[in-house]
Amino acid sequence: MDFSQSFKKIRDRKGSQLCVGIDPAYPGMRDRNVIPSTGSPVDDILSFALDIVEQTGTAAAVFKPNMQYIMPLGLEEMQELNAAIHAAGSLSLLDVKVSDIGETNIACCHWAKEAGFDAITGSPFPGNIASLWEACSGADLGLFVLCLMSNPEAGTFMKSRIGDEVAYRVIARDIRSLGVTGAVVGATVASEDARAIAAELPSSLVLVPGIGAQQGTTDVLALFGDRCVVNVSRGVIFDENPGAKAEAYRDLIAKICP
Amino acid sequence: MDFSQSFKKIRDRKGSQLCVGIDPAYPGMRDRNVIPSTGSPVDDILSFALDIVEQTGTAAAVFKPNMQYIMPLGLEEMQELNAAIHAAGSLSLLDVKVSDIGETNIACCHWAKEAGFDAITGSPFPGNIASLWEACSGADLGLFVLCLMSNPEAGTFMKSRIGDEVAYRVIARDIRSLGVTGAVVGATVASEDARAIAAELPSSLVLVPGIGAQQGTTDVLALFGDRCVVNVSRGVIFDENPGAKAEAYRDLIAKICP
Repeated sequence: MDFSQSFKKIRDRKGSQLCVGIDPAYPGMRDRNVIPSTGSPVDDILSFALDIVEQTGTAAAVFKPNMQYIMPLGLEEMQELNAAIHAAGSLSLLDVKVSDIGETNIACCHWAKEAGFDAITGSPFPGNIASLWEACSGADLGLFVLCLMSNPEAGTFMKSRIGDEVAYRVIARDIRSLGVTGAVVGATVASEDARAIAAELPSSLVLVPGIGAQQGTTDVLALFGDRCVVNVSRGVIFDENPGAKAEAYRDLIAKICP
Repeated sequence: MDFSQSFKKIRDRKGSQLCVGIDPAYPGMRDRNVIPSTGSPVDDILSFALDIVEQTGTAAAVFKPNMQYIMPLGLEEMQELNAAIHAAGSLSLLDVKVSDIGETNIACCHWAKEAGFDAITGSPFPGNIASLWEACSGADLGLFVLCLMSNPEAGTFMKSRIGDEVAYRVIARDIRSLGVTGAVVGATVASEDARAIAAELPSSLVLVPGIGAQQGTTDVLALFGDRCVVNVSRGVIFDENPGAKAEAYRDLIAKICP
């Protein structure tokens, strides 16, 4: 069963399209919304992440640890985290936005699989989506390709022109024609951009960041419906009651995604 | 002393512009050019990397561990590796090609610094070079931004059109105007592209991959001269005698870079 099939099964069983982003910011990175520190980053990050999985596991279809936030973890700690995610009946997506040449992408997929992840995110910037997807498929991993990100500056490259076309449309078409798992489309993107992407992607999954802290709208969710994997990070994990907040987001998303 | 100043000092002292890429491919990734395995990836990767640093440290100005290959290492192992790199009088550059939104880039820089790296690589794809450079500067890290990569498909996005201009030129100009440490320009790029980039970058460092296994030419090296940080990975680390091979590359590069 590939990532898409697994996601749909879990979505229907849990009634959830919520993806909880595991972004355990550490003291020193910013003033608030940081995890408690005992001075041992590996232990602090792992125990925070395991606690989030325990509290939100019934409401989350997917967990998405971001590589930049969990960088201190070694292979064993990543395996422990992913075992907990799977024990909660959820999928694990490594947000690594890999952006490298072919051999290196194979290395990324190898270790992501060994660590127990079910999918990764990747960047189309090196121009090699086809070989990246081959590397993912070879390791039995799903792949979500950056298409139009949620940050305000995302248009510079994602709306650049490739031939006569806007870049995000070329990316979306590649995702479709190669049969890649899904696209990353921010909840903050303009309606006309979201519609143009939806026209190119009639059946892929769409990972949607930007709900909550980034103030995204619900246009993308309405357009892609039950194919959305909707990520919320700090809106859940730094709440006083992550479990209740995850349930609230699960229910809100279920209402918006037709 | 920032990364550029440190590099120039080491370059002059060691007579070397060689960067040894630490890409410890593991059995299962490919058929040959893999490291020995005892079944404990963390130990295998760390001991291979430490051995390379010991054998090539006198000839290498910089070491460039690639995040995708060293993913199994935890914070302590990265710290041990970087301590060895610094003890050899070299700089350490984390090839992570970070490609994320602002808060996440801050997390990347925080952990890269904690792990002992001196610089990172980053992708301009999210359109936020300025804030990425701010995050690097805030953590006292150098930054090399992907400008025109060494893989054959790199042109799709790096030669897309932004307004009336080719993307790599916009990237190069941003690197210059922001005062970013350097650009990544593959040794495999066409002469006219290399010249166009050189015209925009009169003083930045240039990280040049693609020598050796990827069969790059020497045009880029001749154009950027003593500002080149020339990466060789498998051509050194999987040689029977990495120390002698590193010295040979160091001397070859010194001849080509005027």
